[in-house]
Amino acid sequence: MSPTPPALAELLDSAAAGDRVALARLLSVVERCGGRSGEVAGYAYAAPPPYTVGLTGAPGSGKSTLTNELVGVARRGWPAGEDGAAAEAVGHVAVLAVDPSSPFSGGAILGDRVRMQRHATDPSVFIRSMATRGHLGGLALAVPEAVRVLGAAGFPLVFVETVGVGQMEVEVASAADTTVVVVTPGWGDAMQASKAGLLEIADVFVVNKGDRPGVNEARRDLQQMLDLSAPSDWRPPVLTTVASTGAGIDELWDAVARHRAHLVSTGGLELRREARLEQELRRVLAALVLEEVRALAAGRRFEEAVRAIAKGELDPYRAAEDLLRRRRGGVGGTSVGGTTVGGTTVGGTT
Amino acid sequence: MSPTPPALAELLDSAAAGDRVALARLLSVVERCGGRSGEVAGYAYAAPPPYTVGLTGAPGSGKSTLTNELVGVARRGWPAGEDGAAAEAVGHVAVLAVDPSSPFSGGAILGDRVRMQRHATDPSVFIRSMATRGHLGGLALAVPEAVRVLGAAGFPLVFVETVGVGQMEVEVASAADTTVVVVTPGWGDAMQASKAGLLEIADVFVVNKGDRPGVNEARRDLQQMLDLSAPSDWRPPVLTTVASTGAGIDELWDAVARHRAHLVSTGGLELRREARLEQELRRVLAALVLEEVRALAAGRRFEEAVRAIAKGELDPYRAAEDLLRRRRGGVGGTSVGGTTVGGTTVGGTT
Repeated sequence: MSPTPPALAELLDSAAAGDRVALARLLSVVERCGGRSGEVAGYAYAAPPPYTVGLTGAPGSGKSTLTNELVGVARRGWPAGEDGAAAEAVGHVAVLAVDPSSPFSGGAILGDRVRMQRHATDPSVFIRSMATRGHLGGLALAVPEAVRVLGAAGFPLVFVETVGVGQMEVEVASAADTTVVVVTPGWGDAMQASKAGLLEIADVFVVNKGDRPGVNEARRDLQQMLDLSAPSDWRPPVLTTVASTGAGIDELWDAVARHRAHLVSTGGLELRREARLEQELRRVLAALVLEEVRALAAGRRFEEAVRAIAKGELDPYRAAEDLLRRRRGGVGGTSVGGTTVGGTTVGGTT
Repeated sequence: MSPTPPALAELLDSAAAGDRVALARLLSVVERCGGRSGEVAGYAYAAPPPYTVGLTGAPGSGKSTLTNELVGVARRGWPAGEDGAAAEAVGHVAVLAVDPSSPFSGGAILGDRVRMQRHATDPSVFIRSMATRGHLGGLALAVPEAVRVLGAAGFPLVFVETVGVGQMEVEVASAADTTVVVVTPGWGDAMQASKAGLLEIADVFVVNKGDRPGVNEARRDLQQMLDLSAPSDWRPPVLTTVASTGAGIDELWDAVARHRAHLVSTGGLELRREARLEQELRRVLAALVLEEVRALAAGRRFEEAVRAIAKGELDPYRAAEDLLRRRRGGVGGTSVGGTTVGGTTVGGTT
């Protein structure tokens, strides 16, 4: 018999007090149950959001190494701005490594363990991988909530790194305050970045593996694409790094800091975050409502309706309206209460 | 001033009496408004469904010419079966040419007019192209409803031809009683058909443009893929046609008829149709519910909720539950009534 899992309230207290094991468990709850754990969401969103830096790019572009190096530099704090803004300490730094294609998470990935080593002795750095585990709404909802949990647990800076460049990865990475898009000289022409929608989300471009041939071409392609895009008050800088040697990492961190200063001074940060909250709320709404539909489509009334349509007694539109009209109490009252998770599923593997 | 558009009830009567202009207008209503036109859906689903043959394949595979030829042969009726089933007259034949990528429909496509010529003098053949025009749920819902409208208007056989091989095209084409997948010798290896999900949906394979080199390789590739797929009580035959000369069309129609006889004798037809109705009802439910979410996300309460979350007073999950709890009457009562369409949007272009 395993020991009784701690209650959610205890986990929240411990995580806030700096207990990393409690924090990891809390993130597992988010991953598995998302907003169902009313208490976790309440805890997470009561605190101000951490500054979030998203990193995305094709597999093999060296994102993980880059993130790793960036964490080292970021630990030194935000540099003083050209506009006279003072340098700022950062304190604790967290990394969420998100892999939508993997069923594994919570340190189960080999890469995670390898990467942990570099910062293993630094209690101020927390690294955690995340995958979808049946979360309501998937990673698109689990990641923002996890970021807020990290913020509430005392991390003012969170890196969100995604594996792959699918729609989901791009979506997750772009839900950041500053989004860094990583390409490599061998990655092909810049058209691909444009096709994948990366051009629209990038606040900073990095050509990593900058010691390989084709760096100048890659930089030029990106600049040309930027020349063609709609003018904006921020033109993404195009930087070169060699993550494996650390070359260019200071400059990358400076660029992230410049973008942050720009967002703060123009009021863009607030707008971005509000737009993100709107999207989050819309997604939660859609997810809860989808649950209702699933429940409706699984019931006996649904089967009866299908049979009635098959007999020509009913059409699908009237049937759907009937089913929707008959649901009682709506969400929240019955099927999707905030209490279903709290006491029962908190334990388990982390 | 254009003349007052006829009421929906009149259109239904006229279409059922064989008025093709009324039928075309009815299909425009389906395309634009879908199940919102409660009367149309009621009319469409009260009659038994027509036999539906879906045709899909890559652009340039000659689907349109093939469908055209097939219509000519189908007009002769269902052939007598090997199992002693008697030949059967078909009567009227309809073709729905579906192009998810086109905003045009209703005969606006050049190809439509060209194709009309072949059967222009045959009052028993009705050809109509369809595209998405803001239908609730898009083509995935509009096409099944249009098929049922055609059935109710006296067409016992409907061909649904889709342009392209995207997810939507495949989905639309596979929602048929018999699905014909068209490939060409130049289309590349059979792996592509497998990748595009065509292998799973095909009841009959056609290698069209069978007078070109590579026919045997294409046939062999398909057979090998079929060897590898899960055993089933129906193995899709692989036929060769030259649609431009009419070669192989009789054999194709025979194969469709054999598949139909197989479905009828095994009870598979009923199962297929029930599964399809289930999916349709699920889609209508999802579409109606999505409308609810859109309405919720557009209101003042939504904005207030976002502001409360931004202030840390609320989390998105509690906010979503509040919004859902507060909606009154649900769907059907207010926003998605069955009467909103009837009198107002029936006229317009067809």
